[in-house]
Amino acid sequence: MNRTIALLTDFGTSDTYVGVMKAVMSRICPEAFFIDLTHEIPPQNVRQGAFTLLRNYRFFEPGTVFLVVVDPGVGTTRKAIAAQAGDYFFVGPDNGVLSYALAELENPSVVELSNHTYQLTPVSNTFHGRDIFAPAAAHLAAGVSLQEFGAPVERIAQQLTPSFKINMPEISGQIMFGDHFGNLTTSIGELRWINDNQLELRPRFGKTTSAPIVFSADNVTITIGDQIIKGIQRLYGNAKKGELIALIDSGGHLEIAQNQGSAASQLNAASGLQVTLKIG
Amino acid sequence: MNRTIALLTDFGTSDTYVGVMKAVMSRICPEAFFIDLTHEIPPQNVRQGAFTLLRNYRFFEPGTVFLVVVDPGVGTTRKAIAAQAGDYFFVGPDNGVLSYALAELENPSVVELSNHTYQLTPVSNTFHGRDIFAPAAAHLAAGVSLQEFGAPVERIAQQLTPSFKINMPEISGQIMFGDHFGNLTTSIGELRWINDNQLELRPRFGKTTSAPIVFSADNVTITIGDQIIKGIQRLYGNAKKGELIALIDSGGHLEIAQNQGSAASQLNAASGLQVTLKIG
Amino acid sequence: MNRTIALLTDFGTSDTYVGVMKAVMSRICPEAFFIDLTHEIPPQNVRQGAFTLLRNYRFFEPGTVFLVVVDPGVGTTRKAIAAQAGDYFFVGPDNGVLSYALAELENPSVVELSNHTYQLTPVSNTFHGRDIFAPAAAHLAAGVSLQEFGAPVERIAQQLTPSFKINMPEISGQIMFGDHFGNLTTSIGELRWINDNQLELRPRFGKTTSAPIVFSADNVTITIGDQIIKGIQRLYGNAKKGELIALIDSGGHLEIAQNQGSAASQLNAASGLQVTLKIG
Repeated sequence: MNRTIALLTDFGTSDTYVGVMKAVMSRICPEAFFIDLTHEIPPQNVRQGAFTLLRNYRFFEPGTVFLVVVDPGVGTTRKAIAAQAGDYFFVGPDNGVLSYALAELENPSVVELSNHTYQLTPVSNTFHGRDIFAPAAAHLAAGVSLQEFGAPVERIAQQLTPSFKINMPEISGQIMFGDHFGNLTTSIGELRWINDNQLELRPRFGKTTSAPIVFSADNVTITIGDQIIKGIQRLYGNAKKGELIALIDSGGHLEIAQNQGSAASQLNAASGLQVTLKIG
Repeated sequence: MNRTIALLTDFGTSDTYVGVMKAVMSRICPEAFFIDLTHEIPPQNVRQGAFTLLRNYRFFEPGTVFLVVVDPGVGTTRKAIAAQAGDYFFVGPDNGVLSYALAELENPSVVELSNHTYQLTPVSNTFHGRDIFAPAAAHLAAGVSLQEFGAPVERIAQQLTPSFKINMPEISGQIMFGDHFGNLTTSIGELRWINDNQLELRPRFGKTTSAPIVFSADNVTITIGDQIIKGIQRLYGNAKKGELIALIDSGGHLEIAQNQGSAASQLNAASGLQVTLKIG
Repeated sequence: MNRTIALLTDFGTSDTYVGVMKAVMSRICPEAFFIDLTHEIPPQNVRQGAFTLLRNYRFFEPGTVFLVVVDPGVGTTRKAIAAQAGDYFFVGPDNGVLSYALAELENPSVVELSNHTYQLTPVSNTFHGRDIFAPAAAHLAAGVSLQEFGAPVERIAQQLTPSFKINMPEISGQIMFGDHFGNLTTSIGELRWINDNQLELRPRFGKTTSAPIVFSADNVTITIGDQIIKGIQRLYGNAKKGELIALIDSGGHLEIAQNQGSAASQLNAASGLQVTLKIG
């Protein structure tokens, strides 16, 4: 049986928060195996947490439990929830951080984490990661069934902003974040190469799959702030040193990069900046 | 049998020091399971290392071995020690970094790490973490008994500054550190809510448990630098955006936070700054 | 059987790249045990990756698989390779990052990673770490033999700059990097203390072992930029506070440190700065 628990938080790694959650989980489920997806979601940025979960969960072993804690409302009335959807389990606050992943998975079941049997005693007001979420993730990994944790939840909080909007011939989205190399990931996704010069966008967000849009990679104009980039490249190498280029990243999203440099520095681009992809 | 080894150091994670210690331990005890408590103790800050260990060890499975390396005196005459106390094992330099945790545990046994059988050969002058402490932690996790490592130590180095001082109606301590969110942890601890508006402070540091002090959360004044905060809140949400508030953190210490902001930036507060809690 | 996979990359830990590689490996080899050597090689610095692998691989359990991804040429024609050498396995791009370690090990066998059976489908253009290297490392850890991955490679790319040059009475090298404490590691290595005041340098780089050079630690002058340091110390403590000293670090390399300070800040020393050790 798979015992993998994947951790996704905004806790950073300089404090002891992550280590203590692992200690708590390890006591409950000694066979648990932890994979840190990242702890560097910008503090309290629920949307980036949701987006990061969406881009990455599918690479994990079926049965994996995702412990997702980006929780500006800790100690308030927002619910704590767990979900089973597709082949995966998810635990986190009901603030939308799970909503992108659950929207694209089959038959999600969601419950409220209200059964005190599966919580630490006492529950603090400031660290539900340790006292509620980590214990739930560990009990799920140990085989406790979802229904044991509390009553079903019919409707979870949604992270409202859609990932991207299609208004042909334009597709518009935003800069989501810059990575360690200064490459900028945008919210325009579900893209893949179907041959050497054609791309397909197959929108499936929210399960309302539309007809795929097929277009030539040469035949697009990308606008980001006051910069314009012509065409989408297959490789970082397809550009002169220092030139801005557009690519499809390893998660299927449109990426803005600078060959041998940092697009984030060059564009001085903040998360949230509008990006438009115009076909034709 | 529990094989958890918890790591607490000032090594950071950008270098290979932590990875190499794990490699060494994994060779000695292949069943070892590592939990990184933190590697971001400020370089050579023994007191913060001691405080961090004190606040967190109790969340770990009984039997856990704590490998604690904050060691400005590496290569000098300070002893290397291991201890068994309560349900736990501890390994580290004899410079006070273990002293807070050992002071509150029952019947600590301490030995000097002098048996070369349980060290790497040769022992370097600059990396006892790899050559002495990690091997000892791994051999303890593998079941070697404490007495095998060397002669008993009667008296260990103490980290002298007490955590906090009670001089009623005032309790005084210091800012210990700011976390990833900019929340400031103080040394004033052993606090817990006994009902919705009363707090209890039950001093047990150094095993001289005094009578508990009970007080109303509304009826206190906290002074930190030139700032004054009235009352202690239960939740982050109990304040206007940007307002400074006092809370009890998840480890039972007084915490200074700023709602949706960074108290560390706002107060420009350095570790060591005096904090006073006045009752009444 | 050893299932340790050691990870060495320039990916940083703020993104999800490392977590996703572990997810992929864990699916292929559920028994895999991961040790992060470091993910903080400066982006695309192949030479520092090669040097870091060289300094550390020998501390790992025989059978360990090293997953080394510092890969500025991802998506170009550089080969992806795996090697078996000494008691270890290595996976990475053929750009020299494995060349220092393979140069000092017996009988390396190298193959090209061309068998699609052991890759993810489809292979992206931008993240071979996830799609080619991690799967290969996991399949090696699971017991697939090297020959299964592809055809033998006769000649791998070399990282050309030698670690250090001997031109008696001078040995010259460079600053390689500054660590978390501000200590500067140089490329002048293979040094060890043979008694309290004599050092031996036994050059074995590239397997052309020369006669060992023995010299007195007092009788050397080290020049780094416009600073001159006399003698090599055994301990950090052998200096006044703030004084620059030279030591032999825990990996056998000449190190420049500042007692209770940061040599990196004091010297304002960049990686690549020339260092000369003059004997006599």
